[in-house]
Amino acid sequence: MDANGSGRRRFLKQAAALAGVAAGAGAGAEWAARGQTAQTAKPEAQSGAAHIHGDQRRGVRMSIDHITYYTPLQDYAGIITPSHLHFVQQHSSHFPEIDAREHRLTIHGMVDRPLSFSMDDLKRMPSVSRIHFLECQGNSSAMIHDTGNENMGPPAQYVWGMTSCSEWTGVPLSVLLNEAGVQPGGTWIMMEAADPGKFSHNLPMGKALEDVFVAYGQNGEPLRPEQGYPLRMITPGWEGPFSVKYLKHIKVVDQAYHNFNQSMNHSIPREDIGGKARWYHYQWATKSVITRPSAGLEPLRKGYVQITGLAWSGGGTITKVEVSTDGGKSWKEATLHAPVLPRAHTRFTFDWAWNGDETVIMSRSTDDTGDVQPTRAELYEHWGIPAAEAQKAVRTTHFNAIQPWRVARDGTLHDAMFPA
Amino acid sequence: MDANGSGRRRFLKQAAALAGVAAGAGAGAEWAARGQTAQTAKPEAQSGAAHIHGDQRRGVRMSIDHITYYTPLQDYAGIITPSHLHFVQQHSSHFPEIDAREHRLTIHGMVDRPLSFSMDDLKRMPSVSRIHFLECQGNSSAMIHDTGNENMGPPAQYVWGMTSCSEWTGVPLSVLLNEAGVQPGGTWIMMEAADPGKFSHNLPMGKALEDVFVAYGQNGEPLRPEQGYPLRMITPGWEGPFSVKYLKHIKVVDQAYHNFNQSMNHSIPREDIGGKARWYHYQWATKSVITRPSAGLEPLRKGYVQITGLAWSGGGTITKVEVSTDGGKSWKEATLHAPVLPRAHTRFTFDWAWNGDETVIMSRSTDDTGDVQPTRAELYEHWGIPAAEAQKAVRTTHFNAIQPWRVARDGTLHDAMFPA
Repeated sequence: MDANGSGRRRFLKQAAALAGVAAGAGAGAEWAARGQTAQTAKPEAQSGAAHIHGDQRRGVRMSIDHITYYTPLQDYAGIITPSHLHFVQQHSSHFPEIDAREHRLTIHGMVDRPLSFSMDDLKRMPSVSRIHFLECQGNSSAMIHDTGNENMGPPAQYVWGMTSCSEWTGVPLSVLLNEAGVQPGGTWIMMEAADPGKFSHNLPMGKALEDVFVAYGQNGEPLRPEQGYPLRMITPGWEGPFSVKYLKHIKVVDQAYHNFNQSMNHSIPREDIGGKARWYHYQWATKSVITRPSAGLEPLRKGYVQITGLAWSGGGTITKVEVSTDGGKSWKEATLHAPVLPRAHTRFTFDWAWNGDETVIMSRSTDDTGDVQPTRAELYEHWGIPAAEAQKAVRTTHFNAIQPWRVARDGTLHDAMFPA
Repeated sequence: MDANGSGRRRFLKQAAALAGVAAGAGAGAEWAARGQTAQTAKPEAQSGAAHIHGDQRRGVRMSIDHITYYTPLQDYAGIITPSHLHFVQQHSSHFPEIDAREHRLTIHGMVDRPLSFSMDDLKRMPSVSRIHFLECQGNSSAMIHDTGNENMGPPAQYVWGMTSCSEWTGVPLSVLLNEAGVQPGGTWIMMEAADPGKFSHNLPMGKALEDVFVAYGQNGEPLRPEQGYPLRMITPGWEGPFSVKYLKHIKVVDQAYHNFNQSMNHSIPREDIGGKARWYHYQWATKSVITRPSAGLEPLRKGYVQITGLAWSGGGTITKVEVSTDGGKSWKEATLHAPVLPRAHTRFTFDWAWNGDETVIMSRSTDDTGDVQPTRAELYEHWGIPAAEAQKAVRTTHFNAIQPWRVARDGTLHDAMFPA
């Protein structure tokens, strides 16, 4: 007790000397803003509810047939998105209430043994738990960059916040399909949900047998109602609609039958090919974004700035993230933080000293297939979009261009994806 | 829409044939109980509160100066413990309510520059996010095996549930100590908390500079009040009390000064050495436990049983988990699931077919230092406990013996750590 007691006495004697000594200032350092706004609220006694859920009030958009939540990527570190902050793209006016005791998953169509599984049946089967990102196919796309408002948070949230990362638990679809016995020629599956709109989506059999699983758990808890309780598909690395929520039926079929969401709602009209539409969107390319500092957050102060962000790839594992603090003229490698997992968000950090000049900061990811995140110009060139079109926001999805954030001389940050 | 529409019609025609076809039964398989009891409750509409927090009512023990929560290890898969289910060992009658705007962390003692950090100061500094287990030094120890009751859950919860695993975020202590400038001879630190009891604990400088960090985030959220809000130490791989909650003061000192918790409360009296006490407990050895099936859960059914559990080591990374289903006569390697991280829970599974005979199942972990989890007899021999003493529950801490679960002929499971 001696050390502790005397320590306390000594501290009281030094209190006057310590008062007003800002952190780091004594050592001549200046720290840039890296506060986590989710963490500044005062806790409620013991329940913790208020300080935990405080951020949910931002980042929500609702319409008569749609509910969208945007994940506040700027407000947390690490890679696990808190379950209650996972993004939502709900294609209906409300979340269905499903009685898990009554819910069944049916496998039918081109199978030897049509099967119907209760939730208890599924929970007795071999399980896997895997950390994977999910991402709406529209996330970060050009059309989103000018639609923000205060209620949806800063651009790291409303432009980029339709991706999140969780530890999901469930049964490999390959196990279920093996029980049912897929017949020769059964090359696709059609998934159908239990929501009122019967959200449907197809999936090629190769992916279905590779790493897809029907999930009942998220971050150690049951799925939340807005995430598909009691059961959803997890289709790692592919665009969000393949991870069908409220999963009810799986039909094994012989071709890529389409449905409203794929053939109409999520298709991309192409003026350049006579009004035909681009239907097929599968695996996400590699992406990354600097989440802090980023547009709309606290202005920078000269001196030390920790740059941090997330990188991911639908094709595999992130092998490298580079950061440029001079508008893309030069690049240096950022630090990747463990765990670095396939088809999961990967946290990177980069130590920087801002000299007070105007500049542009950005990140660029590379995955283990060799895929490198392109600039917007490179992406549009790859897509065949004419240079004249490339200066304005083009409606598209599956957008994975590098995100530039402009730093003004007053330290404020701005979205520099498109010319002002 | 054709595939979907016709699929629905076909399913309706087949409904009669499908009704009553149990999962897997059509393929001749029997699945053992592996239900996650946390996931059977019905969700409240949209809020999700009831089905998320339903399990908190079990696994709690309170006394006038102590609050303990036991993590229901049997109820989740994967490695991330939901934050609200993280175990608690609170050395007071209530959780302190701290205003984060007023809270300061002081570094003083043998340093060149005594410093005082606000929470905002800390959040501007370089951060790390790491997945680590925490574990009470009494977890799974002999004294606990006979103290359970219904309110504390099955043995996987009340015997083993004082370990949990989270993604923690904060500032490396080495960064803070470097700012303060540790003077020559500053070989230990003394930590003191802001709770009414001023919980204190020491830590050698070598560990302090290695991988310790002051954490303000857990699983992407601010720390919960019961986990030390707004700030706690994370001392990876070492017993729980080194990860001081409500962290307020760090004093750099020149020797291992002790305090109430280390010298009295957590010391182990040794009759065999004249009443002297064992004071020094640091790093956890390697441990593992089968969480499902385990004592008190659903009885097994003959046929397929998925065995699943957790393994970890304070010394490093799990390299191997072996499972025995014949009472330790033979061992086979279990599957380790990614991510396998240093000083973190690691999920393992093992596929088994139970033939209906009485037997004992158990797991044995090995870490990358070569440390192998011992049997209870091996552990007691290592500790110099006489064989005559080894048949009864000995009061001790830092217990890492293999956990045997006995399977009776009726499929029920029982704790077999000690002879009946």
